Amino acid sequence: MSSSPEPSAAEPQAWFERACAERRRLVDSALEGWLPPEDERPPELHAAMRYAVLGGGKRLRPILALAAAEVCGGEVERALPAAAAVEFVHCYSLVHDDLPAMDDDDLRRGRPTCHKVFGEAMAILAGDALLTLAFEVLTSASPVEPTGQVEDGALAAALVSELAKAAGHAAIVAGQVADILAQGAEPSAELLDYIHRNKTGALIRGAVRMGALSAGASQEQLQALGTFGECTGLAFQIADDILDATSSPEELGKTTRKDPARGKLTYPGLVGLEKARETADGLVEEAIASLAPFGREARFLEELARFVVLRKR
Amino acid sequence: MSSSPEPSAAEPQAWFERACAERRRLVDSALEGWLPPEDERPPELHAAMRYAVLGGGKRLRPILALAAAEVCGGEVERALPAAAAVEFVHCYSLVHDDLPAMDDDDLRRGRPTCHKVFGEAMAILAGDALLTLAFEVLTSASPVEPTGQVEDGALAAALVSELAKAAGHAAIVAGQVADILAQGAEPSAELLDYIHRNKTGALIRGAVRMGALSAGASQEQLQALGTFGECTGLAFQIADDILDATSSPEELGKTTRKDPARGKLTYPGLVGLEKARETADGLVEEAIASLAPFGREARFLEELARFVVLRKR
Repeated sequence: MSSSPEPSAAEPQAWFERACAERRRLVDSALEGWLPPEDERPPELHAAMRYAVLGGGKRLRPILALAAAEVCGGEVERALPAAAAVEFVHCYSLVHDDLPAMDDDDLRRGRPTCHKVFGEAMAILAGDALLTLAFEVLTSASPVEPTGQVEDGALAAALVSELAKAAGHAAIVAGQVADILAQGAEPSAELLDYIHRNKTGALIRGAVRMGALSAGASQEQLQALGTFGECTGLAFQIADDILDATSSPEELGKTTRKDPARGKLTYPGLVGLEKARETADGLVEEAIASLAPFGREARFLEELARFVVLRKR
Repeated sequence: MSSSPEPSAAEPQAWFERACAERRRLVDSALEGWLPPEDERPPELHAAMRYAVLGGGKRLRPILALAAAEVCGGEVERALPAAAAVEFVHCYSLVHDDLPAMDDDDLRRGRPTCHKVFGEAMAILAGDALLTLAFEVLTSASPVEPTGQVEDGALAAALVSELAKAAGHAAIVAGQVADILAQGAEPSAELLDYIHRNKTGALIRGAVRMGALSAGASQEQLQALGTFGECTGLAFQIADDILDATSSPEELGKTTRKDPARGKLTYPGLVGLEKARETADGLVEEAIASLAPFGREARFLEELARFVVLRKR
C-alpha cells in the first residue's frame, strides 16, 4: 500500500484518511466479489444480503484486519478473506440485532433496517446466509474464483476457529443475550464490561488476530495484537455509548438514546460522561502501548485506535 | 462398530435397528460433549441451544455421515465432527424455520418449539449460536478437548467448505426463501424440485459427502456418494410430504397438514399420493444403484435409504 506506513509530518490526518480510504476500497471490492449477484436465484435473498453489507459502513473491522497483517510483514491481499469474513459476521449481527424481537431498530447507517425493507423472514434468512458465507469465504481461494479450494488448509482452519470463537455462544451471541436480559436490571460495572467485551470487543479482537494469522504472525505478535484488539474493542464500545448520548440521529445515521430510554446499561449512564471519556482514552493508550514490539511500523494501527474514540460517526 | 456391516439373514430388521441405535448413541454423546454446559454464562442461551438439539431426533443426517465414512473404510470416530456439525446445522435451521416470522410452528419432535419455550429473541440467538458452533466443531480436535486445534487443517477446511455450501445462500437458505415465497404461487414441478433439493436435499447430500471426506474418500467414491445423498435427500422430503398428508400430529410429533392449508407446495398435492410414492421409491432405487462400486460393504447405507421412505415418523 503506497500511503502506509510513513506519514509526512505536514499532513498526518490526510495520510491517515488516504490509508483508510485505500483499504476501504479494497475491502468493498472483495465484499462485492464474494456476495452472490442479485440476479442469481433467489433474487429476494441476495438483494437483502447485498443491502445489509453494501452501501455504507466504516469497514473498521476489516481495515484493522488488513493493518494487523501489514504490521506483521504480510501482504494485504492475503488478509482479504479474513477481512471480508469479519465484515460479513458484523453485518449479519446488525441485521439480527435490529429485528423486532431483539432491539427493534428502524434506522441503520442512515437507511431503513433490513427487515423494514425486506420483511422479517427475509432479514432472518439474509443474516443466516451472511454468517454462513463468512465461513465459506475463509475456505475459498479468491473472490474471483470462489469455487477454488484454498491452498493453505491449516491457515483456513485456524481462521475458521478464530472467527467461530469470536462470533459464537461465548462471544457475540453471549453479549447480545446478556444485553437483552440486562434491560431494567441492576446496573453493574461487571455486567456492562461482560456485555461490551463479548458483544463488540470479541469481533474487533478477532479481526486483528485473523489479520495477523493471515500474515503468518509469531505467537508473540499474536499475543501483542490480541491485547491491542481487546483494548481497542472496549474503547470502541465506550465511544459508541458516548456518541449515542451526545449526537443526533442525523449525525449517527441510526436511532440515538434508545438504550438509556429502554433501561439498557451504558457506560455514560453508569459512570458519567467524563469518566467514560477517561476510560476510553486510557484503553487507547493501553492499546498503543501493546504495539511497542512493532516500533514505527505500527503507526497506522496506532492511528486506527485513536480514530476509534475520536470518530464523529 | 460390532453390528455392521453384515446382518444375519434371520433378523435383518433387528440388525439395522441395532446399528442405528449404536451410532445414535455415539452421535448423542458427541453432541452433548460439544454443546456448552447449561450452567455456563449465559445460562438462558445455553439452555435454549441444548433444548433445540437434545431430547429427540432420529439423527438421520449424522448416521448417514458415519455410514458414509465406514463404507469408505474410515473409522466412525474420525467422522464425528462432521456428523455433529451437520446435526447442529439441521437443528439451527429447524429453530429458525419454526419462528413466527417464518413457518410459525408450535410443535416439533413432540415438544413445544424453541421460541415457544424461550421466546423469539432467544430462539433466534440460539439458532445463530448453533450455526456458528457447527463450524467451530469442524476445527476442534475433539469434544473432550474442544480448545485443541485440529491436526489435519486441509480436511477441516474441506469440511467447512462443504458445510458452508450445503447450508448457505445457494442451498438451505435458498430453499427456505423459495418455500416461503411459493405460498399461494402457481404449482410447478420445477419449483417444488428446487425447494426440496435446496431445503432438505443439500444437507443430506452434504452429510454423506462430509462423512466420506472424513475417511479420505477418493474422487470416485465422493462422486458415487454424492449421487446417493442427492437421491436419498429428495426421497426423504417426498416421504416427509406423504407422512404429513397421511399421519396425525401425535404420530409425527409436529403439526401436520399446515403446508397444504397455507397453500404451500407439496409432492402429494402436486402429483397425488400414488405418484408421489412411486417417485420416492424410484429415487431410493437410484440411490441404491449408485452404491454398486462399494459392493456388500454398502448394506447399511442401502438400508438407510430404504428407511428414509419407510419410516413411520
